[in-house]
Amino acid sequence: MIKFYNPPGIAAPASRYSHGAEAGPGARWLHVSGQVGVAPDGTIVKGIEAQIERAFRNVEAILAAGGMGFDDVVKINTFLLTRDHVPVLRKIRDGFFSRTAPASTLFMVAALAHPDWLVEIEVVAAKG
Amino acid sequence: MIKFYNPPGIAAPASRYSHGAEAGPGARWLHVSGQVGVAPDGTIVKGIEAQIERAFRNVEAILAAGGMGFDDVVKINTFLLTRDHVPVLRKIRDGFFSRTAPASTLFMVAALAHPDWLVEIEVVAAKG
Amino acid sequence: MIKFYNPPGIAAPASRYSHGAEAGPGARWLHVSGQVGVAPDGTIVKGIEAQIERAFRNVEAILAAGGMGFDDVVKINTFLLTRDHVPVLRKIRDGFFSRTAPASTLFMVAALAHPDWLVEIEVVAAKG
Repeated sequence: MIKFYNPPGIAAPASRYSHGAEAGPGARWLHVSGQVGVAPDGTIVKGIEAQIERAFRNVEAILAAGGMGFDDVVKINTFLLTRDHVPVLRKIRDGFFSRTAPASTLFMVAALAHPDWLVEIEVVAAKG
Repeated sequence: MIKFYNPPGIAAPASRYSHGAEAGPGARWLHVSGQVGVAPDGTIVKGIEAQIERAFRNVEAILAAGGMGFDDVVKINTFLLTRDHVPVLRKIRDGFFSRTAPASTLFMVAALAHPDWLVEIEVVAAKG
Repeated sequence: MIKFYNPPGIAAPASRYSHGAEAGPGARWLHVSGQVGVAPDGTIVKGIEAQIERAFRNVEAILAAGGMGFDDVVKINTFLLTRDHVPVLRKIRDGFFSRTAPASTLFMVAALAHPDWLVEIEVVAAKG
């Protein structure tokens, strides 16, 4: 059971996330590697929307392997190449986090490991 | 109770942080979202000093919401836009971590989510 | 004891890492600060290979101070300045993770805190 914090003394989050998220001493913690827009057959999907959607599907599959889901995500970190992609990221992300809003960090990196990747998403999740 | 490690076999930290920081099995873990120089009324404060100070105050409010404080911070990650801002960051950071020195990572990103933000600071804290 | 996940529904990792890594409720967690190519005497070693090797040796010393080793690493984050250095990073990293493959995130940053640093490596480890 994750606790989310949005204290009144600071401005509300800029989008659908929480300022803080906490899991208790009884939890097991799952760290998910940075996921990108690569389909199960290894091909890179085209366009920022498809890559974000695919990265989230990959995160979902890894969480499921650990018996977890998006409700168990404590923290999400998102790395983009351009600020122009922030609105579409937020729109798609909101669909995956319809019931919870984990802690979040987002910034633009200089480059990702493959020249055709447009986004990388990693999460930390906790359960139990 | 956090344990800090600075083993003799490697060079001392470049500033006031520890090479390693650890919390035990009984701890609850609080992840704080990347905080920026946004005041409680939603306005972006002006200048790097004010933004760093404000980001730390925001972190402080979120830690307090979880019954924690700067003494409970295990790890701090700081993202700047230019290396020129590193000295002022260290000076202000030292004021907030006067009794402890958490593990730390710092690097320059290509851009933050808003064009007027100059710094983003996230922490992971543990207690109990 | 760390559990590694590479579910069949997504493409295999691009190199020697796992898509997910998990530690249980009984673990203590050690966060290691971003390590760079600085020798014990404080000098910056020359060249990307030497800096990567040195950063890993520093990580190793900090893990050892906490009674841990590379087998206990749950997550590794690597920050480079250029994609050209990815192959040498993977080659050296594989030598340190010969028995396990932690979760991993890798991207290129705009700059590191010192102009002569070429790589920064941080890990999160768990034991017990």
